[in-house]
Amino acid sequence: MFITQTLRRAVQLNGAGVATVFEGRRQTWREFENRVARLAGGLIGLGVKAGERVAILSLNSDRYLEYFYAVPWAGAAVNPVNIRLAVPEIAYTLNDSGSTVLLVDDTFAALLPALRDQLKTVRHVIFAGDGSKPEGCLDYESFIEASGPVADANVGGDELAGLFYTGGTTGRSKGVMLSHDNLVFNALNVVAEMGYDRDSVYMHAGPMFHLADMASTFAVTLAAGTHCIVPKFDVDAVLGLIQQEKVTNTLLVPTMVNLLASSGRIGDFDVGSMKRMLYGASPMPEAVLLSAMEQMPTVAFAQGYGQTEASPIITSLGPEFHVPGGAKLRSAGRAALGVEVAIMDTNGDELERGSVGQICARGGNVMLGYWGMEAETAEALHRGWLHTGDLGYMDDEGFVFIVDRAKDMVISGGENIFSVEVEGAIYSHPAVQECAVIGIPDDRWGEAVHAVVVLGEGGEAAESDIIDHCREKIAGYKVPRSVEFRSEPLPISGAGKILKNELRSPYWEGSQKKVN
Amino acid sequence: MFITQTLRRAVQLNGAGVATVFEGRRQTWREFENRVARLAGGLIGLGVKAGERVAILSLNSDRYLEYFYAVPWAGAAVNPVNIRLAVPEIAYTLNDSGSTVLLVDDTFAALLPALRDQLKTVRHVIFAGDGSKPEGCLDYESFIEASGPVADANVGGDELAGLFYTGGTTGRSKGVMLSHDNLVFNALNVVAEMGYDRDSVYMHAGPMFHLADMASTFAVTLAAGTHCIVPKFDVDAVLGLIQQEKVTNTLLVPTMVNLLASSGRIGDFDVGSMKRMLYGASPMPEAVLLSAMEQMPTVAFAQGYGQTEASPIITSLGPEFHVPGGAKLRSAGRAALGVEVAIMDTNGDELERGSVGQICARGGNVMLGYWGMEAETAEALHRGWLHTGDLGYMDDEGFVFIVDRAKDMVISGGENIFSVEVEGAIYSHPAVQECAVIGIPDDRWGEAVHAVVVLGEGGEAAESDIIDHCREKIAGYKVPRSVEFRSEPLPISGAGKILKNELRSPYWEGSQKKVN
Repeated sequence: MFITQTLRRAVQLNGAGVATVFEGRRQTWREFENRVARLAGGLIGLGVKAGERVAILSLNSDRYLEYFYAVPWAGAAVNPVNIRLAVPEIAYTLNDSGSTVLLVDDTFAALLPALRDQLKTVRHVIFAGDGSKPEGCLDYESFIEASGPVADANVGGDELAGLFYTGGTTGRSKGVMLSHDNLVFNALNVVAEMGYDRDSVYMHAGPMFHLADMASTFAVTLAAGTHCIVPKFDVDAVLGLIQQEKVTNTLLVPTMVNLLASSGRIGDFDVGSMKRMLYGASPMPEAVLLSAMEQMPTVAFAQGYGQTEASPIITSLGPEFHVPGGAKLRSAGRAALGVEVAIMDTNGDELERGSVGQICARGGNVMLGYWGMEAETAEALHRGWLHTGDLGYMDDEGFVFIVDRAKDMVISGGENIFSVEVEGAIYSHPAVQECAVIGIPDDRWGEAVHAVVVLGEGGEAAESDIIDHCREKIAGYKVPRSVEFRSEPLPISGAGKILKNELRSPYWEGSQKKVN
Repeated sequence: MFITQTLRRAVQLNGAGVATVFEGRRQTWREFENRVARLAGGLIGLGVKAGERVAILSLNSDRYLEYFYAVPWAGAAVNPVNIRLAVPEIAYTLNDSGSTVLLVDDTFAALLPALRDQLKTVRHVIFAGDGSKPEGCLDYESFIEASGPVADANVGGDELAGLFYTGGTTGRSKGVMLSHDNLVFNALNVVAEMGYDRDSVYMHAGPMFHLADMASTFAVTLAAGTHCIVPKFDVDAVLGLIQQEKVTNTLLVPTMVNLLASSGRIGDFDVGSMKRMLYGASPMPEAVLLSAMEQMPTVAFAQGYGQTEASPIITSLGPEFHVPGGAKLRSAGRAALGVEVAIMDTNGDELERGSVGQICARGGNVMLGYWGMEAETAEALHRGWLHTGDLGYMDDEGFVFIVDRAKDMVISGGENIFSVEVEGAIYSHPAVQECAVIGIPDDRWGEAVHAVVVLGEGGEAAESDIIDHCREKIAGYKVPRSVEFRSEPLPISGAGKILKNELRSPYWEGSQKKVN
């Protein structure tokens, strides 16, 4: 399978159909393919060789999608950089991947002066923005105009399609190697699960560098649908685009669903075209989901669970299980079509249904490994099974319930305490807006349960209130021993996950344990 | 990917759900898996090694499906034998494949005395029928009872999943080698195209040895649905099973749709559960299709085009194009999701839209090759593209229109004449029930157009009537030069295709050309 094959199919089935809509611009699939073949010609003209990495650092745009196709068309591999990273982290990603060409948009061109001195392998920077071209950059559009279209390099199968860095908050961020087969296999699964077809109008509202949005990127093209793109998530921009382009599908992370549901703006737009919304990448509070379902009654909600290492979909929970109070609503759903899922113990043996263990996945979607990290690769992949690092159990009908990240579980006095369960108890206190539960060092118990809490506007609660509240909800050994209040929102990742490693690190200074 | 993975998924998602319904028997997916693991243990006990071929010669049954899973579970490869073959042809298939074990049912046990002396590699025969066990056979059920369940051999990916013989009317029948990846890739495509899910109840009405029915076999399991099975196609049996089991999906070849539509029996049964019917494997007369659509209004019809070498689906035409008089209704549809389709000239270059050339396909579904036939494999597979031997063109929206089999095209006086087009003209004569157009040797033109015609009951027409009728419909050079009348039905293959090679052979005796 080939990434570019999804594009060829879109042109074959829907050449005159709309490929991309972005701000004032729109183009057909035939026009899109022509631009891709020219951009690929330009990259080859710069000396880009088969398998070489070409990076991008940009907000969402139609050019981001052209990049996703031009790079494999030229036979090279993508490296879409996390836009939330600080300059030294960006430099690490570019250097570690050995990227030789970098595309930047208007927003990130501003970082070039600070970034340039730290780059070891980048030979060319292409400015893919609309403002004035910074010094020392090539211009994206004149680049396309000047280059002739080249034939597809026809690179595919097990070949590297791209490096996708995860973590990203420390220098030890890992470059996940995904092949063409990995990404197209995921696309086949997602088309089946989401029902994408030629009439689908998908909105890229989450960041395009992230696998949560990318779960649909190649799938929508494969189905010959239309990509509508907002530069970044914004309530009014998103609602306006849904109304204007009659968007039918999108992916939102829970924080975005929350912003939308609590905006009070949905009623001001016509969102009746929306058929299906996929959400995932971090846990979704049920109240937020139910509020969104109520405000957008035409939308069938579906949950996807996965990770970059799985290209990304592992399980999905279809709309038929999205009923208020439904028994499966708290689950992450069942194994995606071509993906095998098993709950394994630490020996790699499958556990009985209902027992908590590590969620493992096998299938054509599982990564080649981590770039230049053999030990980490061997740890993540045993006998073809991806070990996700997530703890969960499976019920008798194959539904997977996630209980915690393995590294977020607190082990206190020999008992396993799932941070997510404790957080659920704390969240049920009316004054709490945000919280995170972590393990901190304890001389007697090994670790102690510690809660970091942000109160809502006007909310009041003391440490003892939180502890007393929890005592009514969960077993004594799970109740936080200490509570820390913060006035600022907790630090989150690009996917909206709370960065518990940052919360843990001050407590574990001088020890490597538990920080990441 | 693994064939057995589709079974593991069915057990995981729907262990207590019904796996198979056959005559008086039904079993859950968990029971089915247990029997499969025992049968696999029995095969291993017989000395079956990884990759070894295990054949079956049987009408449809639940045991046929158990066979499809037990053989890969044991690490071996299947060889489902065409039930329409004569004894010497069966022997050829078994010997050529090197099958070491053969399963037979009641119907085919009768052939054993004639067959046995001709078999060179079969060491054991297992009787999988319900009658009394023939001498020298092992008994299927006591075999399962006596064997312990073994662990899945975990053979998959590019490994041989089975040999599937095509042609089959001469000793030169070819064993198509399909891998696990081939068959599961097709299953993923078919689930997406047909919308199979846990609630699907699929009826095996066509022969289970044939890839037309097998297109859905692994797909229905992957979706964790239910298999309902009739021993062989019979109008009342099929309608009765639809009513009794609330069948939702099936595959019928056009001759079966014709028998059903013209039976006058549909109204006597409740067929309201039927949601979707896939048809394919040979051309469907539009009048038959429209009649079936009218009589079964709940059914969404879909066409699949493919061949054994493509595991089998290449293109499909969805229900949305099944409208009377629809412009696309005569097409075979568009490339299936993960399959690339191109129309190529004899140099292997892609042709312009609208030009007739060979239909070629590329994707994870394309066979490994022909068993022990390197030259034929090289002819069928160039640069990863399967050359189907079918001639057709593609329109601007990617719809493929098949004009003829390459070998059925008549070349007369340098003109290409598509036999299917001439047959269409002849079929429009009211007295004609069946016809086939072939090329026969002609000293002046190379080949001459020759028609073989069967008249309907009470129908009357002379050679000149047919020729005059054609002259009004098609260009002069396409009109048959000679017409031959037959009183018996024309010879057909297992998939209901007229065997033109048999019609041609008397004319081309002494020449290898054109017979096959």
